[in-house]
Amino acid sequence: MADQKKMVEHITDREVDFAQWYTDVCVKAELIAYSSVKGCMIIKPAGYAIWENLQKELDARFKATGVENVYMPMFIPESLLQKEKDHVEGFAPEVAWVTQGGLEPLQERLCVRPTSETLFCDFYKDEIQSHRDLPKLYNQWCSVVRWEKTTRPFLRSREFLWQEGHTAHATAQEAEERTVLMLNTYASFLEDYLAIPVIKGRKTDKEKFAGAEATYTVEALMHDGKALQAGTSHNFGDGFARAFGIQYSDKDNKLQYVHQTSWGVTTRMIGAIIMVHGDNRGLVLPPRVAPTQVMIVPIQQRREGVLEKAYELRDQLSGFRVKVDDTDKSPGWKFNECEMRGVPLRVEVGPKDIEAGTCVVVRRDTAEKKTVAMAELASFVGEELELMQQEMLDRARKHLQSHIYEAADYETFCKTINEKPGFVKAMWCGDQACEDKIKADLAATSRCIPLADEEKISDVCVCCGKPAKKLVYWGRAY
Amino acid sequence: MADQKKMVEHITDREVDFAQWYTDVCVKAELIAYSSVKGCMIIKPAGYAIWENLQKELDARFKATGVENVYMPMFIPESLLQKEKDHVEGFAPEVAWVTQGGLEPLQERLCVRPTSETLFCDFYKDEIQSHRDLPKLYNQWCSVVRWEKTTRPFLRSREFLWQEGHTAHATAQEAEERTVLMLNTYASFLEDYLAIPVIKGRKTDKEKFAGAEATYTVEALMHDGKALQAGTSHNFGDGFARAFGIQYSDKDNKLQYVHQTSWGVTTRMIGAIIMVHGDNRGLVLPPRVAPTQVMIVPIQQRREGVLEKAYELRDQLSGFRVKVDDTDKSPGWKFNECEMRGVPLRVEVGPKDIEAGTCVVVRRDTAEKKTVAMAELASFVGEELELMQQEMLDRARKHLQSHIYEAADYETFCKTINEKPGFVKAMWCGDQACEDKIKADLAATSRCIPLADEEKISDVCVCCGKPAKKLVYWGRAY
Repeated sequence: MADQKKMVEHITDREVDFAQWYTDVCVKAELIAYSSVKGCMIIKPAGYAIWENLQKELDARFKATGVENVYMPMFIPESLLQKEKDHVEGFAPEVAWVTQGGLEPLQERLCVRPTSETLFCDFYKDEIQSHRDLPKLYNQWCSVVRWEKTTRPFLRSREFLWQEGHTAHATAQEAEERTVLMLNTYASFLEDYLAIPVIKGRKTDKEKFAGAEATYTVEALMHDGKALQAGTSHNFGDGFARAFGIQYSDKDNKLQYVHQTSWGVTTRMIGAIIMVHGDNRGLVLPPRVAPTQVMIVPIQQRREGVLEKAYELRDQLSGFRVKVDDTDKSPGWKFNECEMRGVPLRVEVGPKDIEAGTCVVVRRDTAEKKTVAMAELASFVGEELELMQQEMLDRARKHLQSHIYEAADYETFCKTINEKPGFVKAMWCGDQACEDKIKADLAATSRCIPLADEEKISDVCVCCGKPAKKLVYWGRAY
Repeated sequence: MADQKKMVEHITDREVDFAQWYTDVCVKAELIAYSSVKGCMIIKPAGYAIWENLQKELDARFKATGVENVYMPMFIPESLLQKEKDHVEGFAPEVAWVTQGGLEPLQERLCVRPTSETLFCDFYKDEIQSHRDLPKLYNQWCSVVRWEKTTRPFLRSREFLWQEGHTAHATAQEAEERTVLMLNTYASFLEDYLAIPVIKGRKTDKEKFAGAEATYTVEALMHDGKALQAGTSHNFGDGFARAFGIQYSDKDNKLQYVHQTSWGVTTRMIGAIIMVHGDNRGLVLPPRVAPTQVMIVPIQQRREGVLEKAYELRDQLSGFRVKVDDTDKSPGWKFNECEMRGVPLRVEVGPKDIEAGTCVVVRRDTAEKKTVAMAELASFVGEELELMQQEMLDRARKHLQSHIYEAADYETFCKTINEKPGFVKAMWCGDQACEDKIKADLAATSRCIPLADEEKISDVCVCCGKPAKKLVYWGRAY
């Protein structure tokens, strides 16, 4: 049985080779398959179901803030991409170009969208005339293409799925408020729903989005101590509006430029779930996002009444996303498979359990086993899923907090970056030269200037010794 | 007020110029905007919300039959597209080609998927080894590109949104059953949810999908009597499996080729909703698919208590998709806007209504006004929406049935096609030459060979007079 063979092979130990462990989980938990299209992956049902849950929840949160969904073309004419100078410089080197349509060469080549600021601007310049047309709070769910040289499932691929919100406002203040609102939406979504705590902050100019005035980020810490930028929210000021001529007449009938934002998260979040919560037995899914929250595994399922009882329990648990594994694999096999796929709770039920009126519930994250009276299963499962969600967040938060270090001088800074995976907080003069040196010396980048007030570590830049302007979280990142 | 000006312009009369009326509705009901990308449209919030509702309902119906969602790359390497001979001949002339990635020309050019049979086959050849791996019932929601020369919103555009299901089965019979199951899923969805009755049938060889053994179709009739292919379901037999080498070992350990199907519907369905149900005041949305089912319009909204009552009624109607139009436009303006956008029910509430404890409910399709006691509004709205859905289907069915004609000889056939928009049933010898002649003479095509048993009209082909093999629905089509 080829299929079973695939599963019993062990996955690489997470502490021995984290990168290989990650890839193993992606493949063995059947989240992805590699495709014949270089740098593009196939998202398989188990992976896509996670994306569907993420999308549904996040979309509802967006809509609760007044956002509406639209769909823009996937192509951008070259002349349109070039309208905003910084933006084209940032993206042109990494886009895919369509040069032929049908049997004819195109008069103007089209890039496959790497992001859609230029399309939204082109649209807004016609849609927005009056202050009555504002704000525009549009979002789209789609795929985008960036011609990356090295790729990894979910983390970096030539095509990926994402959402991109694009808003236009009458005032700079409103745009700034929206930028921060969406950052907070991402942060609370990651914490509440994916059990991933984040540091909220602002990117330095070197790290900000091409064309943005300010980029805000939510930075998460993976199990191996590397940072992952989990979502970004950009304030464009009126830069794009000036480049594209997006003006509205205000209440006094004067023409004004709009102020814009954009914000996005991607299938990367699935990578974050794997790398924050997974273990040596495979994926561990937070209950809220898990496509299957409870798997019922019948024991001695050919014995009379066992399957029937399993189905009965399933019906009892209809308030949850529940399945019965009634395939002809062995129970041990089914246990391994459940674990690899990260199903939060496994319920075992066999002839002895039925006699005793109980079943055994096993938690994926702790491997803890509990015997539960069948009559109380539904309420137990509800509580246990909530508890697991909470404890997963607590553990992840503890991991994050215990991997934030401080450094006041460059020697300590280098030593910490090299020896202690995690974030290193250090002061910075505001000069890009120091960021460049740190990157060259240590392969570490400025992750963000935290939004929360944090006590300063010293008065001088950790790198050059000049007076410090900001406290920065530094780290190696995905 | 630029925005208001856009709305008060009249739309073209539907009986005078149906094509222009259609475009007017697409634009004035704010379903789409034209983009700077030739042949590609922008789907605006009012249009995309319809797509979201369609998608949610259809996706649930797919999943109820065991279908799982996946995501495949948007690019197809040229060599992969070429593996199935008929398929590449059908699609290669109308695809967009990516020839450059980043700053480098590609070694092998990639087409932007026009459909993904080749990608799914390439995937299945690795995924499917044993009979235990079957069936595979995968679907994806995505956009595809076909380099059309003439385009129309929703009906034909260079990029469009759709779903494409791709299944693999152990036996020919199972594949055929799945093909028909999905056709029936489309038919009942169109009827129940979109109030669009259809003719289910099989395409002739001339009209079938490139590479399919059999193509089934659901054909709908628009208000102007032209046919619209609203969805198709294809049985590939083992043709693709042989071209791609997709084999499984059966229970006796013998290698067998799989049998495959694919099936899809697109944003075209939104075009069908417009053209089946719309009228000279704009869009008319069937209640089940309408993003806003009830719009509450306050009259004299500055008078004390009016807006409060409007919000109170909204809360009372929380079981429906309901909104209050509390903008500062005039009530007459709001009525027109509601009508243009196809909102099924409008509820008017003003000081006199409040005094009387009633409100006025107006149905979009019939313009019928009813005075309803506020205390009974929720139950009235529930019943009225159901009734409207049913009556819309009944009217559409009556329109369909009254536009199906028969012709036993070529003269009658030509006269009917030319003078009576609709379907013309006529006998056919099975020879493509007759289809070609009919297309050349009349710009009409064979729409389908109906699945339902229908009494034959004569013994000979309506075109050539040779013995007839099949009864065919003919018509002019979108």
